[in-house]
Amino acid sequence: MRLAELSERSGVSTATIKYYLREGLLPAGHRVSATTADYDEGHLRRLRLVRALLQVGGLSVATAGEVLRHIDDDSLGRTIRLGAAMWALPGPPEPDLADDGDMEAARVEVDQLLDALGWQTAHDLRTISPPYRSLVVGVATLRRLGYDWDAALLRPYADLMHQAAVHDLDMTESQPSEAEQVETAIAGTVLLDPILRALHRLAQQEETARRYGL
Amino acid sequence: MRLAELSERSGVSTATIKYYLREGLLPAGHRVSATTADYDEGHLRRLRLVRALLQVGGLSVATAGEVLRHIDDDSLGRTIRLGAAMWALPGPPEPDLADDGDMEAARVEVDQLLDALGWQTAHDLRTISPPYRSLVVGVATLRRLGYDWDAALLRPYADLMHQAAVHDLDMTESQPSEAEQVETAIAGTVLLDPILRALHRLAQQEETARRYGL
Repeated sequence: MRLAELSERSGVSTATIKYYLREGLLPAGHRVSATTADYDEGHLRRLRLVRALLQVGGLSVATAGEVLRHIDDDSLGRTIRLGAAMWALPGPPEPDLADDGDMEAARVEVDQLLDALGWQTAHDLRTISPPYRSLVVGVATLRRLGYDWDAALLRPYADLMHQAAVHDLDMTESQPSEAEQVETAIAGTVLLDPILRALHRLAQQEETARRYGL
Repeated sequence: MRLAELSERSGVSTATIKYYLREGLLPAGHRVSATTADYDEGHLRRLRLVRALLQVGGLSVATAGEVLRHIDDDSLGRTIRLGAAMWALPGPPEPDLADDGDMEAARVEVDQLLDALGWQTAHDLRTISPPYRSLVVGVATLRRLGYDWDAALLRPYADLMHQAAVHDLDMTESQPSEAEQVETAIAGTVLLDPILRALHRLAQQEETARRYGL
């Protein structure tokens, strides 16, 4: 299809598409003459992902570019490729914690939790994994604030999140190619995060009303 | 206890405690003389919650004040009181969507999902509920971006989030008073959000490695 049709079908203006092309967020079209290029379904799909990253994920153009480079890097196996792309997504803001006794204790607890769960990959990749760090910081913060808590209490949440992940991956497997599965996994992460959060809040409200009335 | 001990036990400097007192984030101590006041375990608990809201939740002092006013408003029933406090917490950034056909279609789908789930309260409070709006916007965004999706596919996630909410509430019930249960629920929401997100990411990584290798 020509640029005009790509714009029409994606709902993205031709000026914006040209900007994404210049910034490398969208691969160049197949050149058919000195002034025209042809675009395919892959471009349409990529455009959808770019909008998800920028408009819903709130990523900068530079960060979105980094995520897409990881997605496209087929020199890596799928887990590392997907991991690298996900790890480039912005995480939650992190409280400023010194690397002290609470952090060390939290690290030990989180490692025990991962062992108990049998999450071997999460454990193996722990030194380079932002979600591992995020989990340690979360547990250290609970300790720091004086809440009576240890990471073993997270076990039921970890089991629920594993069920969510199984469902996430089942959904990506309906996509025909590995490239599309990886793209869908990243788009799903960005688009589903706010939805899961909203469902959690609605469920808390519902369960509170069931137990205590309005 | 005196101010110095409250500072010592909470790890918050006396200057910061005085600032929270001036801003109304912490109720005044019980005056024992013209220059000294006495603080109790309730102050210590409240201080922990204030730090969770400001340092982990990233709330402004004004927003934290609003959350605490809702928590303390015992003219309201627990569901509304907790709801109002939760709704004052900042939600995820929302893409700028016109209130058009996609939004209307998403609203219909979300209402059908809530009916299918039997979430009557979530449905009844929908016109004033930020998480309801957030869910509708999330579904509308998926439609807008052209993903082949409808809200019924969210059913398994909704069931998982309901199990998480049951666990959330079970944990708050270990607290002795209603006031403490409500405080714990709010602190839990702020502190557990980043932890759940980290667990979800780690579980995705684990499940990807199990299916496709590293």
